[in-house]
Amino acid sequence: MDENDASLAADVLLAADMRGIDSHGVSRLSGYVRLYESGRVNMKPGWKIIHETPSTATVDADGGLGLVVAPHAMDIAIRKAKEVGTGWVSIQNSNHFGIAAYHAMKALPYDMIGIAMTNASPLVAPTFSKERMLGTNPICYAFPAGKNKPVVVDLATATAANGKLEIAQRSGKSVPAGWVQDQQGNTSIDADELKKGGALLPLGSTYQTSSYKGYGLGAIVDILSAVLSGANYGPWVPPFVAFLDPVNDQPGKGIGHFVGAMRVDAFRPVADFKHHMDRWIDRFKQATPVHADQRVIIPGEPEFAEEQKRMEEGIPLNPKVVEDLTILAQKLNLDL
Amino acid sequence: MDENDASLAADVLLAADMRGIDSHGVSRLSGYVRLYESGRVNMKPGWKIIHETPSTATVDADGGLGLVVAPHAMDIAIRKAKEVGTGWVSIQNSNHFGIAAYHAMKALPYDMIGIAMTNASPLVAPTFSKERMLGTNPICYAFPAGKNKPVVVDLATATAANGKLEIAQRSGKSVPAGWVQDQQGNTSIDADELKKGGALLPLGSTYQTSSYKGYGLGAIVDILSAVLSGANYGPWVPPFVAFLDPVNDQPGKGIGHFVGAMRVDAFRPVADFKHHMDRWIDRFKQATPVHADQRVIIPGEPEFAEEQKRMEEGIPLNPKVVEDLTILAQKLNLDL
Repeated sequence: MDENDASLAADVLLAADMRGIDSHGVSRLSGYVRLYESGRVNMKPGWKIIHETPSTATVDADGGLGLVVAPHAMDIAIRKAKEVGTGWVSIQNSNHFGIAAYHAMKALPYDMIGIAMTNASPLVAPTFSKERMLGTNPICYAFPAGKNKPVVVDLATATAANGKLEIAQRSGKSVPAGWVQDQQGNTSIDADELKKGGALLPLGSTYQTSSYKGYGLGAIVDILSAVLSGANYGPWVPPFVAFLDPVNDQPGKGIGHFVGAMRVDAFRPVADFKHHMDRWIDRFKQATPVHADQRVIIPGEPEFAEEQKRMEEGIPLNPKVVEDLTILAQKLNLDL
Repeated sequence: MDENDASLAADVLLAADMRGIDSHGVSRLSGYVRLYESGRVNMKPGWKIIHETPSTATVDADGGLGLVVAPHAMDIAIRKAKEVGTGWVSIQNSNHFGIAAYHAMKALPYDMIGIAMTNASPLVAPTFSKERMLGTNPICYAFPAGKNKPVVVDLATATAANGKLEIAQRSGKSVPAGWVQDQQGNTSIDADELKKGGALLPLGSTYQTSSYKGYGLGAIVDILSAVLSGANYGPWVPPFVAFLDPVNDQPGKGIGHFVGAMRVDAFRPVADFKHHMDRWIDRFKQATPVHADQRVIIPGEPEFAEEQKRMEEGIPLNPKVVEDLTILAQKLNLDL
């Protein structure tokens, strides 16, 4: 793999670990290597723009790592935003892109709003179905602020993503009702339900509490990322794990992403926007709490706090991840 | 009011009634009239573009009806999309804009993806708070398809919008847990909870089932609609009902909207996109249902079915709405 690309991919994984998103950090490295070994990732991709207008582009990632192509696509979006106010890039023929926030936040130093989303292997059953049809399809919006940290909304459109199930599995606990259903579509609190053929539930959890909204949000991400770019969508999205083969009769190429950048000063002066972002943030922090020892959390605030903490104290790695990385290093003959 | 504007506003309300969104149709007319009578709506607005780039614009609605300015803003977005691929318009100093789907769907005849969102009077308490800080802040995305009807995802970012509570109130029923909390922040199933100082819950309902995601989505809408345009945001958004005065020390003007249009052929040929939209729709309709008598519903499908039905059978009006309209007509000396 090209050294610059390797360095960029490492930076994306490290950012996840720094921000406390341990499920998307170096713990994924051996998974990427297995994808490479099974021929599912092109480590020397010739990604290129296959279609464009002044404010848009479609990128063929040539089977490369999403970790690498998504930041490049953000660069294209930022360039176009500089030229015409906003830039939007839909990406086909890619692979898992890590944390959405890394890509969206690339827009912040330019005083732009950053947007990133991706489709993913099908694990989520739409309302009324027991079939896995959508990925956890995350959406991220990053907004610059003034004296405060940026507001970074980064959410999977399932009630709970797989990483949360894994935490429950490790501690042998059950999960709250509303996260998963069993293979027959019944409510379940079994943290192992996905391994037994069950499915994650869309944000909203049940019909009564509007799971069709989470399904609708997952659909938006799927269509912008894949139907618009020419990638696979719905149940055809190739699995992230190398031991599962992609299904036949695929309608597109690889998985899809959608990223965007909007220049703040394409709408109003940057100083005005940042002043009001600060006022928004300060006011929400002061919202009356339910309990005196709580307060409203600003989207992105816990991740910035964790980053600060880990910058000082280091990143605590799970022993299983360390073992995994050690085996990988030995296999690839690398110094540790 | 200008006759063209009046006709356009009527068209937006009628579209809601045709699509079965009775809470946003002619039942709202007397509310708009009361806003006018209290001097809160400018019926002869000189709305104008106050800032623009090739792909963006900011519009000052001059205190006019959102019903009127939002379609004009969509026209601007569509024009910009024709020129540079996408168009995005943030609107300040507006009022309630009716159903988001009307505005987003304006893009469909041009083979564009339409987007519309708006902030609204604060009724939703963010996670950990008992204070109403956000509106039901809807998001709508409309995607053109080929042989199938378009996919129209239109959702409030609260678990349930106020209209659903009103239906429960009329039938004297309780509401499901997860829709509202009482004034102290406790879970409640009382359909009248909002009148007692309680709040709607964000999509996700509780912390355990990720209400912070619904709060995050509501925040995205609030920021794009109001912090970006110069409108009021968060708890400062003026109330829709005329008998409540706007709060003091407002940070912006009126309420805010955000609309957009993306040319499909700015990303890939229209025929390819529509072919794959059809395949997406057909595949989701075939997803294995939990019960044999159910199937997965495509976003927007129930509204298209209702529109077809009401086109044939007429719009059933609630007797209270008829009475309301009759009183209004008498007061304004109009023939019925």
